[in-house]
Amino acid sequence: MAGSVGLNRVLEPAGVLPQAAWRLDASPQIGPDEVRIRVQRLNLDAASYRQLAEKHAGDGENIRAEVLEIVETRGKMHNPVTGSGGMLIGVVEEVGPESPLPVKVGDRVATLVSLTLTPLRITDDLQGWDGLSEQVPADGTAILFGRSIVGVLPDDLPPELALAVYDVCGAPALVDRVVRQYRDPSVVVLGGAGKSGSLSLAAARRAGARTKAIVVSEAERDALSEAGLADEIAIADARDAVAVAAAAGPNDITVVCVDVPGCEHGAILATAPGGTVIFFSMATSFAAAALGAEGLAADVTMLVGNGYVPGHAEFAVDLLRTTPAVRRLFEKRIAGD
Amino acid sequence: MAGSVGLNRVLEPAGVLPQAAWRLDASPQIGPDEVRIRVQRLNLDAASYRQLAEKHAGDGENIRAEVLEIVETRGKMHNPVTGSGGMLIGVVEEVGPESPLPVKVGDRVATLVSLTLTPLRITDDLQGWDGLSEQVPADGTAILFGRSIVGVLPDDLPPELALAVYDVCGAPALVDRVVRQYRDPSVVVLGGAGKSGSLSLAAARRAGARTKAIVVSEAERDALSEAGLADEIAIADARDAVAVAAAAGPNDITVVCVDVPGCEHGAILATAPGGTVIFFSMATSFAAAALGAEGLAADVTMLVGNGYVPGHAEFAVDLLRTTPAVRRLFEKRIAGD
Repeated sequence: MAGSVGLNRVLEPAGVLPQAAWRLDASPQIGPDEVRIRVQRLNLDAASYRQLAEKHAGDGENIRAEVLEIVETRGKMHNPVTGSGGMLIGVVEEVGPESPLPVKVGDRVATLVSLTLTPLRITDDLQGWDGLSEQVPADGTAILFGRSIVGVLPDDLPPELALAVYDVCGAPALVDRVVRQYRDPSVVVLGGAGKSGSLSLAAARRAGARTKAIVVSEAERDALSEAGLADEIAIADARDAVAVAAAAGPNDITVVCVDVPGCEHGAILATAPGGTVIFFSMATSFAAAALGAEGLAADVTMLVGNGYVPGHAEFAVDLLRTTPAVRRLFEKRIAGD
Repeated sequence: MAGSVGLNRVLEPAGVLPQAAWRLDASPQIGPDEVRIRVQRLNLDAASYRQLAEKHAGDGENIRAEVLEIVETRGKMHNPVTGSGGMLIGVVEEVGPESPLPVKVGDRVATLVSLTLTPLRITDDLQGWDGLSEQVPADGTAILFGRSIVGVLPDDLPPELALAVYDVCGAPALVDRVVRQYRDPSVVVLGGAGKSGSLSLAAARRAGARTKAIVVSEAERDALSEAGLADEIAIADARDAVAVAAAAGPNDITVVCVDVPGCEHGAILATAPGGTVIFFSMATSFAAAALGAEGLAADVTMLVGNGYVPGHAEFAVDLLRTTPAVRRLFEKRIAGD
């Protein structure tokens, strides 16, 4: 067990799991149940990239320098402010003899565990990245442990599209599971025009729910309206609890896909008694959610959006393949990056 | 609706709910649907008090000064570091003509919403408090909004005992609800000897679960063993994920009642696939939970411990009345404060 979750890679503090560690050993020599990936591209978590971009006022050179410094210092791309990471794609370079992962040398793969726990070494100084996008071309090595999740990239999808889907694939799978616990539910997605948001809407509708979306701008409303994923769309600032409640009305299920702090209370107010709030945003504050629900005397179930549901990657890719509107939203988003 | 959640009390930033606000208007004049309480005692949240005590190295005078400064600055006892508050008891002094709360002037009550959203003014400089305990004798005024939760103190329990129970009453009610969703489940409580922990164990057992507890010391183990609330008790540091997993084994339900950061991963590892983790500790990190479960490929449901479940106060008081062992644990804890 010890080796399989990567304890041997933890440098400090001792005894914690890699995700909780301040610093990992990212050396490329693998242990018997590890896998080494030759990295091709990082996909930074949206909350993490936003924090870096805001801190450096959009200066790409400084953003690039800080990403390099984080990886050099921590042995992983683990943003110390947001606590979030992202994912990567690359090619399997070496597979330890005891690795249980279903990959072989030469497979093009995406890691489905967070960069916050993935030992990472960058060897090209990120020369091919201008610092202005979450998508980071990179050369280097990453390590997967025995207990990990990795997806071989589908042949029929461009790798950046597959990566973008894998990045948020926990969301639609969990939405599907929760929707099926209700009878004829209404689902509202805060941030419905984004990646996890649009996949959540598609999953909710396929599972039989009525769907609403809250978006932040007319441009997003128009894009989502064209996609036809939501029965109703309203424009509101997700941080404005009263506006969200007014726009969304009471719902059985509220899904939070807005990567900015302060969306907890609106989500709770938008949820009917007996309903469920699913928090997928890494900007969620545990205390704001727990105390907010209490303070509002709200009898709602609040779920931490677990990024893992068995079969989640295949589920999300299937949604993308079978819902052309979702695919178009993703392609537009990638083109606009 | 606007008045009922206290929006009129928010000074900055505008538009957020009182819990999210930096500063509230704590003036004692009440609006038509508000209630004013004459404060007698604050019960600081454990995580908040711990942070203050550590910061000031146990210097009671400095702890007292910082609590006064927080209340003066923010208009509420909302610890800016931990984000948590606590509760209070007092006597109803004035009831607005439109208040829907079931109280009358002269009732001795406990507020069941967090101090983080309760407008509070302290008028006695906390002269009666030595700063060395979470229980803070105080004089001043607090305001309750229309949409709030308040409990009249039971006649048969000392007020500090009722307050201690009310402080954690969301935990046993939610544990009861989750246990009843499983068939013959095993439940492990991290921090089983504490207030929310012992009530959670009692609730789990009453709902038919097999119970285990993880505690931090031999003293806690002996106290809990004497109380007979857990079928098994093990000693482990809840922050040591590997130790917790080894001691707890896989469980259907894991309840986190340890008010220190870093318990997310052990809780996830202690939970079987298909199981549920309930996080009651205000020291829980949303990102650590979400990314930890993903990184461990753990198919577990993770609940933000909502402090409100309908009937939670009566449920917890009933557990205390009918489980003498729980009452003894609470009384010991209060005596030791």
